[in-house]
Order: sequence, then structure tokens, then C-alpha cells
Amino acid sequence: MIEQAIPETLGVEAFQALFDRCSNWGRWGPDDQRGTLNLVTPEHRLRAAALVRDGVTVSCSHPINTVGDNENSSPAMHFVVRAGDVVDGKTVHSTADHLAVSPHGVVHSHLDALCHFVWQGQTYNGRPVSIVTSMGARANAITIGQDGIVSRGVLLDVPRALGSDWLEPEKAISIEDLEATERAQGVRVTSGDILLVRTGRQARRAALGAWDSKSTLSGLHHEAAPWLKERGVALLGCDGVSDVRKQPFTVTTHPIHILTLVAMGMQLLDNQHLEDVAAACAARSRWEFMLVVAPLKLIGGTASLVNPIAIF
Amino acid sequence: MIEQAIPETLGVEAFQALFDRCSNWGRWGPDDQRGTLNLVTPEHRLRAAALVRDGVTVSCSHPINTVGDNENSSPAMHFVVRAGDVVDGKTVHSTADHLAVSPHGVVHSHLDALCHFVWQGQTYNGRPVSIVTSMGARANAITIGQDGIVSRGVLLDVPRALGSDWLEPEKAISIEDLEATERAQGVRVTSGDILLVRTGRQARRAALGAWDSKSTLSGLHHEAAPWLKERGVALLGCDGVSDVRKQPFTVTTHPIHILTLVAMGMQLLDNQHLEDVAAACAARSRWEFMLVVAPLKLIGGTASLVNPIAIF
Amino acid sequence: MIEQAIPETLGVEAFQALFDRCSNWGRWGPDDQRGTLNLVTPEHRLRAAALVRDGVTVSCSHPINTVGDNENSSPAMHFVVRAGDVVDGKTVHSTADHLAVSPHGVVHSHLDALCHFVWQGQTYNGRPVSIVTSMGARANAITIGQDGIVSRGVLLDVPRALGSDWLEPEKAISIEDLEATERAQGVRVTSGDILLVRTGRQARRAALGAWDSKSTLSGLHHEAAPWLKERGVALLGCDGVSDVRKQPFTVTTHPIHILTLVAMGMQLLDNQHLEDVAAACAARSRWEFMLVVAPLKLIGGTASLVNPIAIF
Amino acid sequence: MIEQAIPETLGVEAFQALFDRCSNWGRWGPDDQRGTLNLVTPEHRLRAAALVRDGVTVSCSHPINTVGDNENSSPAMHFVVRAGDVVDGKTVHSTADHLAVSPHGVVHSHLDALCHFVWQGQTYNGRPVSIVTSMGARANAITIGQDGIVSRGVLLDVPRALGSDWLEPEKAISIEDLEATERAQGVRVTSGDILLVRTGRQARRAALGAWDSKSTLSGLHHEAAPWLKERGVALLGCDGVSDVRKQPFTVTTHPIHILTLVAMGMQLLDNQHLEDVAAACAARSRWEFMLVVAPLKLIGGTASLVNPIAIF
Repeated sequence: MIEQAIPETLGVEAFQALFDRCSNWGRWGPDDQRGTLNLVTPEHRLRAAALVRDGVTVSCSHPINTVGDNENSSPAMHFVVRAGDVVDGKTVHSTADHLAVSPHGVVHSHLDALCHFVWQGQTYNGRPVSIVTSMGARANAITIGQDGIVSRGVLLDVPRALGSDWLEPEKAISIEDLEATERAQGVRVTSGDILLVRTGRQARRAALGAWDSKSTLSGLHHEAAPWLKERGVALLGCDGVSDVRKQPFTVTTHPIHILTLVAMGMQLLDNQHLEDVAAACAARSRWEFMLVVAPLKLIGGTASLVNPIAIF
Repeated sequence: MIEQAIPETLGVEAFQALFDRCSNWGRWGPDDQRGTLNLVTPEHRLRAAALVRDGVTVSCSHPINTVGDNENSSPAMHFVVRAGDVVDGKTVHSTADHLAVSPHGVVHSHLDALCHFVWQGQTYNGRPVSIVTSMGARANAITIGQDGIVSRGVLLDVPRALGSDWLEPEKAISIEDLEATERAQGVRVTSGDILLVRTGRQARRAALGAWDSKSTLSGLHHEAAPWLKERGVALLGCDGVSDVRKQPFTVTTHPIHILTLVAMGMQLLDNQHLEDVAAACAARSRWEFMLVVAPLKLIGGTASLVNPIAIF
Repeated sequence: MIEQAIPETLGVEAFQALFDRCSNWGRWGPDDQRGTLNLVTPEHRLRAAALVRDGVTVSCSHPINTVGDNENSSPAMHFVVRAGDVVDGKTVHSTADHLAVSPHGVVHSHLDALCHFVWQGQTYNGRPVSIVTSMGARANAITIGQDGIVSRGVLLDVPRALGSDWLEPEKAISIEDLEATERAQGVRVTSGDILLVRTGRQARRAALGAWDSKSTLSGLHHEAAPWLKERGVALLGCDGVSDVRKQPFTVTTHPIHILTLVAMGMQLLDNQHLEDVAAACAARSRWEFMLVVAPLKLIGGTASLVNPIAIF
Repeated sequence: MIEQAIPETLGVEAFQALFDRCSNWGRWGPDDQRGTLNLVTPEHRLRAAALVRDGVTVSCSHPINTVGDNENSSPAMHFVVRAGDVVDGKTVHSTADHLAVSPHGVVHSHLDALCHFVWQGQTYNGRPVSIVTSMGARANAITIGQDGIVSRGVLLDVPRALGSDWLEPEKAISIEDLEATERAQGVRVTSGDILLVRTGRQARRAALGAWDSKSTLSGLHHEAAPWLKERGVALLGCDGVSDVRKQPFTVTTHPIHILTLVAMGMQLLDNQHLEDVAAACAARSRWEFMLVVAPLKLIGGTASLVNPIAIF
């Protein structure tokens, strides 16, 4: 396991330099809102479908969490209308559902829209933060994936490759770690892929109990961001929030969020449940699969709960 | 266009007889909760993936509707936290989302769980309605599809086959209509398929304006229910709610809901947006495609908003 | 019944002149947020309490409306957890409640905060609209009344005084109408009062059915605004929304809202249920009472559902 | 400070005996739903109004709590629509509010309806728990106080009388403690009163930080329940939840809730903010005041957020 020294503090210039290395602004024209989803071509979807060999499907989502606690500051609310109840003299003949959720946060499995983060007053492709109103985003919204995000999914199970059950919460995953995992698994991340990075968060939680995951979570070292661009990742997911927390910047607590969402135009799948898909990969010694993400068609949304489906 | 006479009223015996013809109770064992999802085997998923030839994806969902009116009695609520706002002296650095929705009803694109309807106090496979509590369903919940519902989708564009732009709201689609559409399209619904039935509801609405869709909608004639079972349909979807309304029974306003959800154990996709997928089919003269439905992982849920993705 | 001609259109200068006549900006200092609540002194509360002679209480609120339709575009959502349900093997021993509401609109009985409306980019006392963030208002919020608004309530039952059961929706209530009602009732609105103006909206609805109350409602003529200031009204309520709609301005659809909330710093009680309190007044031939308004203590709120209690 | 020994366990017979001593079932007829609110007569309201001597009002409510943590498992959700945002090409000219709340729990200031608790399958006056459906309570609902609960409020500041800043969370307040507080304050609880019992919960929290208030809170000893009935208390409030937790019963964790809500038909004000009203009382050496509680008019509600207003 290769450790990477993290400088104590990095200022705005250091971060801006990293941002500029990652930026895709203008790459697909001044009006582009799709960002790295542009890297997913029909050809990629065909190749993804061709990965289906067993006809087995696996969810990458946690159950929706409805209990507030120190980790879950915005629990979902779920209420059900029962059938058989008599209301106003009439028997209710069907059940009904109500769900309310604020999907951002560190427990809900969700997809971040490009407008979720801001750098220097701007969102992806130079659009000012003012595009996001209290009634929804006028651009860079969750609807860019409304026809489904379908491509090859690649799981990098970093702790497994590094010989441990999980990464410690302060661990910053380096390029070396990612490439060592590729080698161990015999897979290579290429253009148009959906990359899922496993840190073993759930395994650690199951073994040691909950910790303050709002403050400390393993995730990608900020120097890995340009590697994501270089490899042509279309969408990034993690069982954490992709960012390692704590990290060294004075200017942001979420460098990976800014470098992906804002600079690259790359959406993020946060808080994924990767234990099942990791087991399915390990059982097959195959770390690639067709992956389908179907965000809700929420005009102006800054996020969507999603249930990404891996198809083996 | 073949019309089918509808008797004025049908009583409980007539409906029970129909129910018994459709019933799958016990077919997959006394503990089964998956119903007709059992018909989707890995082999079906492989064949579905093999239908991907163009790498083009199409959504079957409407945008989430947030405006209450006579048609939409339970509008969703969507609010967004802006970045840049200063709260308690600190600048908010990311945007956030809140969505609340009661998905049942005649405007929201959703998947019904098997527990959504009741017949004679029971839900699918003989489970009493008391399994559904105000805090969620203990069985027959939306989670049976939580690993994704993936199979061949078949679209039957009934008005197109019958030579019209849409079906009138009182039109009951008969077996003859369905089979005439199969013949016109050169496709046959077989075991494990996800069947989508287009009535042209949106086309009619676009041309003539909204009507009282709570009371009148085109849908399947109740005699078509046994045909669904005979053909081995795994999941049924419609741009309406599959039921034709009004209909002739004294004992229920939703015979198709009861015959599918309760008797067969077949979930329903209500209020789908089928205009785009119909156009994609027509352009290819091909009425089959890979279809992926990824309901939210909502324990005890009686429904989920979904965004079904057709992959051509 | 005295009719007042309404000019077809009034421009920004005409409205600004009216605004300036009504303005209380600076009257209670540059930092004031309480507006006309400053007019309610301890002495007023003492006199209000002295009006209690019968010990009878009457609500001025409608039941919370949970059904969306063309009039109610944002229905409240109310769900209840039942006791006795068995969840995860345990019997639930208490019932629970969930209520979600967007209180503004034309059916919910609510109190508007001063920040609810804007004129030329500013809210009451010159605070810019930017004080209202998507996470709440930093000033001019609903909390100015958090210790309770208690004063003399005066009901002006305008249709009763004018000899009719209700006012027609397009009726603009003039100063003459208000003063004729005062004379008919033998009461005079004075400094520190909570003024409730009845238009008979519910009576009309009960007799003739619902109409498009989003577009047409009886309310105060805009020229009555300076009269409210002159009389020293502390809080204004109405069974409509105080504004007559339609009205003649090109610059706003809600002149009374702007002239009270923004110019005067006077909060508004919208959509009050005034039939019971009107009957209680008529039975006593007494149009004054102690009135207690207890808004929810919602930091940053722009409104609160309220149930104002008249005490006779 | 008089300690009262608590037996380790008390079984169903002991509790039933206590229940029977407290029961008001049938006292106001078989159809009664108002319970101890029947004790508040017009005469009591007149006397309450006569207590207003200073014209000063004080809130007994906490701010609405929107942050989930280990103490607050169901945080409220509050979102605001800003004015000035441009949506669909139009500038929003007013701000708007959305509030969602599940009021039960140990942080929200709320009023419990009589149907909130159950004993042996029944609610107040022998109504079965089945009156509470998932769509609301058909009886014993929060609407019994919809015209306002107005009476004399009496604050018993127990820690102050016992010479401490707060009671420890495990402290069970005995009859002796209550009567010692009456003597120290020179006040006597009598029929029709609204009794507020201060435990100093907020003072302790401010000094020592939060603790697990879901599990341990000071409150009334169960033997004090018959005393409440004997004195004719109409409504009981507390800065905790009136119950002391932990307590000795095997059959319930909330004896006071059952003995008041179910047996006596006495509603409860939970989690009140009593620091300000205690200070107002101490400053005047007067522990009585006019108290107005105005629950939201929520048909079928099992609770309401409330902001009780003490008027001195």
C-alpha cells in the first residue's frame, strides 16, 4: 500500500492550477451542458450491452434511509396510506405512498448534477451560479442524463487490490493505488467508462460501527483528478463521496467535487452500495459490466436519488 | 377498429371468475412475492441485451409534475438550495435539492408495487391487506424489483395500428386490438416480456387539451387480462393507467389493477411517456428493445417514481 | 353601495407615489423589522384583554386543505402513522403525524412575513431582496411575531353593511365602503388594531360554488392603503388576500401586498375563515374582540400557517 | 429535595389500577372527545383574561428544528423560494415557504392529540385504536382545540423551588415536589388550569451539553397522575415530555402519556421552551398568566406544532 504525502495546506493558486489541468470548458462548445457524458457514444453502449453474459443484475444503491442521526442529518420521510381504512364513510381500496427526500448528504445513494458545486462563482462551462434558483437550475441540471446513462461500468476495488478489507477513512487514493488496482484486476479504465471506486466503507462500518462520515471518508487524492480526465471517465461513483475528507486545501473541502462537477463536467454517484457488485465481480474475476443509471426526470434538479443497475 | 360491447354492469361473481382465471397464487410457491417477475430469467436478460443494435436510449418517463390542478391532485414539491447565499455568516458553497412526491395518481410516471391494490381483503398470493402498515408494506413491496427489472420491452402502438392518432378516452382495448397491433407491427408478445401499451394519451392532450383523466382514460378491456397471463407478460406499462375508465364493474373501478397486481402478481408502470419510444420504434420499424426499470430501493414502498430506459 | 371607478392602467409613477404615501421606512429607525407591530403596545394588549366579556373563543382559520385542484395548486400533505401496526416485529404503541405545506396561495389560512413581497428590489425598510435566501430570510422574517400578536381585533363586515351576502369577486373595497361599514357597525378602527375585512368569499362559494379565485377576488381598493396607515392598523386580515384581483396596475398584480408588507411593514393574514367570527360579532352587535395570532417559530420563514383566535 | 423510591418493575395490574384511578371515561358522556378541555369554562377564560396586567407576551415554543442528529431523528424541512429569481423567463416577484414536519419526538414543541397513545387497544373514552387511520384520526383528533385553548396558565418551576438550576434527567417529580413548588411560589393549581412543569431541561443542556434525551428526561412520577385529575388540570405541558424516562413499568415506557391522553383525556404540550416564561414569572413573583394555545386546524391530526403564548 503506497502512501502519498499530503502537504498541510494548499492555497487558491495550487487549486486553480489543478482546476485548469482538469477543465473541459469549451471542449464540446460554449453551450454544452452534458460534459463528460459526451464521451459515451452509441458505440460505447453497444459494447456495454455486449458485456452482458450471465443475465444477472445487481443494485448499487442503499435502501433509502429514513432515520435521522448524527450521520444522517436529512433523513428521508416515508409514509404509506393503508387500504381498508374507512375515511369519510368510504373504505380505501388501494394503498398509497409518500416519499420526501433531500438526497445530498453522506448516506443517500444519489447522482449529483453538474450545478451541485461552484468554483469562483461559476459552474461547469462557465455558467454563473445564478443559474441555480430556489425553484431549480436553469442549466447544468440533473436532466442531462434523463434518457439514461448507459455504458461500461468498471469497478476498482482498491482495498481488495491493496490486500485489506477496507481503506481507513483518512486514506487518499492515489493514481498509483488506482493503477495498482487496475493491474491486480486485469482491467483498464478507458474513454466513456463509468468508474466505480470501492473504499470498503460499508465493510468497515459493519465491522467497527458508524463513525463521523461527514468529516472523514476515504476517497480520491486530488492529484487523481487529472488522471480521470486523461482516461476519459464519463461518470464517477464511490461508496463514499469520491472526495477524501479531510484534505489539505484551504479553499475547499471538496476538491474532487469541484474538479469533476465544475471543471470536467463529470457527474458523481455518491454513497453507492458497492459490496454486492464487488462480490459479483470477484466471483467472476471480471471487473466490467453493463451499467444503467436512470435519474428521475426532475426539471431543474441538482440531484436525483438513483438505483444504478449493474448487468453481468 | 373492432369495437367490443361492454355489458352495463358486472357483479362480484363475474369479477371473481375473471380473477380466478388470472390468478398466479401459489404458482411460484406460497412464499413468493416476485409474481410475474419470476418469468424474467437470466436468459431473457441476455436476449434483451442482444436487442441493442444502435446504442440509442429513450426515456419512458414524464417530467415530474409540481403543479396541482384538477388532474394532478397531489403535485410533487421541489425546492432547491442555492449556492452563494450567505446563511449565518457563511457562504453556501453547494446547491441542494428537496423532492417530495406521492407518486400514485394519473400524472406521475411510477411503478406500482403488488401491494397497491386489494381484492376481498387480500393482496397477491393471499397476503392480507394488513401487511401494509402506515409505515410501509411488510411484503409485496416495491423492493421486489430493487436489483433492476431488465427484459425485452415490446411496444404495442394500438392507435397507430388501428389507423388513428390516439384512442378516445372511453376506448377499451380488446384482445383483438392487441393482436391486430401485433400483426401490424410484426411482433409477438411472449413470456418474460415487458409490455408497453400506447393509447396516444399525450397526443390527444397535445391536440385537444387536458380532460378529466381521473375519470376517463383508455386502457385494456378487462377480458384482455387473461391474455396477459397466457402470453406470460412480466410487467405491464401504459401511457394511461392500463385500466380503461369508466368500465362496467360494480365491484371495482380498476379491474386491470386488481387482475394484474393482485391476481397475477404483475406490477404496473402507470402514466408512461410513450411518444418518444413510439417514434423510435416507428423509425426503426422495430417494436422491441432492451428495457431497464430501476425502482428506488424503498423498503416497504407501495410505489416508486421510475424513469424506464429503452435501449435500441 | 358606492362604486369607485378604476382607471384602466396605472404606471410605475402612480404606484411609486402611492408607495411613498404609505411608507413607514425609517419611522421606527433604520434597523426596525417589526413595522406596524410597533403600534401594538402593552397598553393595547391590556385593552384587548379587557374586551373579553363572554369567555367565548372563535377560530379564524380554515381547515388545512390537502386536495390539489385548479384553486389549490399546492395542497398540504398529511400522513398519519397508526398505532397497532407491527413493524420489524414490534407493535407501534403511539400514532404520529406528518404535515407538509407551502402556505402561500389562495386557500391556506396563513400569515405573510414582511419579506414575502418586493418592490423595486427592496423589502420593508429598504432591505434588499437578497436577504431572502433559499434557506430562509435573514431579516423581515415571520419571527417578528414569535411572541404572539395580541391586540384588539376589529371585523369590518363589508357586505353586511352594504346590504348583501357577499361582494362580487371584482369588487374593490373603497375607503367609503370601509367607513360606511364602520358607521353601520358603530366601531372605529384605531391605532394598534388588527383589522379583519370580510368580503363574504365563503358565503359566495357556498352558494354559487368555486370560481377561479387565483384570478378574481374581492379586496381593498389600492387607494384604501393610505387609510390603513392613517388609522394605524397593526395587522390586516381578509377572507380573500386583501388585494382585489384583477386591478389596474401595470407594475404589480398585488398593490395592497406591496403597500402593506413592503411600504408600511404591515403583515397580512390571508384566506381567513371569517364566517364564524362574523356570526359571533353579529350575535353580540359588537365588532371588536381580543385577537391572538401565534405564528410558528420558524426562523427565516416567509409565512406561517396560523389559527388566529378571537376571544369574546 | 425529597426523593421517592421507584420500585424496579410494575406490571400490568399495577398500571391498570393507576389507569382506573385516573380515568375520565364516561364522565362527560359516551360521545365526549374533549376530555379535560371540558374543565375550561367561559368563566375560566374570563378569569384568565383578568390576569393580563402588564400587556407582555412570552412564547413557550422552541424554534422549529431542521437539523437531524441523534436527538432529533425527524428534523423539519424548510425551504424558501426567493424573489428575483428568473424562472421560465419570468422574474419571481414574491418569496414563498415550504415546511414539512413530523412533530412528535423530543425536540419539537407540539401539542399531542388524545389519539396519540393507546392502552389495551383503546384511546380516550373507549374508542378503539382503529379510529386512527393512515389518513388521519376519525375521533380524538387535534381539532378538539381548534377554537383555541385559553385558560389560566400556572408554571411550576420545580428546580427553582427545590433550590437547583435543573433536575437531573432521571428525576421523577413527585406530588410532594409539586406541592412544595406550589408553596414556594404561593400558587395553587385548580380546576381548568393549564399546568406547565419546568424541569430545567434547557438550562442543563446549555450548561452541560446535549444528552440522550430520547432515553432519559426528567418528568412526572406516575403517582402524580391522579393528583392531576384531582386538581382538575385541563392541559399539561412540560419542557420535557411530562414522562420521566426511564421509569419502572414493564408495560409502557410512557405512563404519564397514557394516564393523561388515554385515561383522563388530557392533551399534552411536549418540549416547551419554558426558560423565558419562567424568567417572566420570577421577575413578577407571579406564577400565573393568561395562556393561549392555537393548534393548527388539521382535520384528523394526531398532533400540531404550536406556539403557546403566555400573556402577563
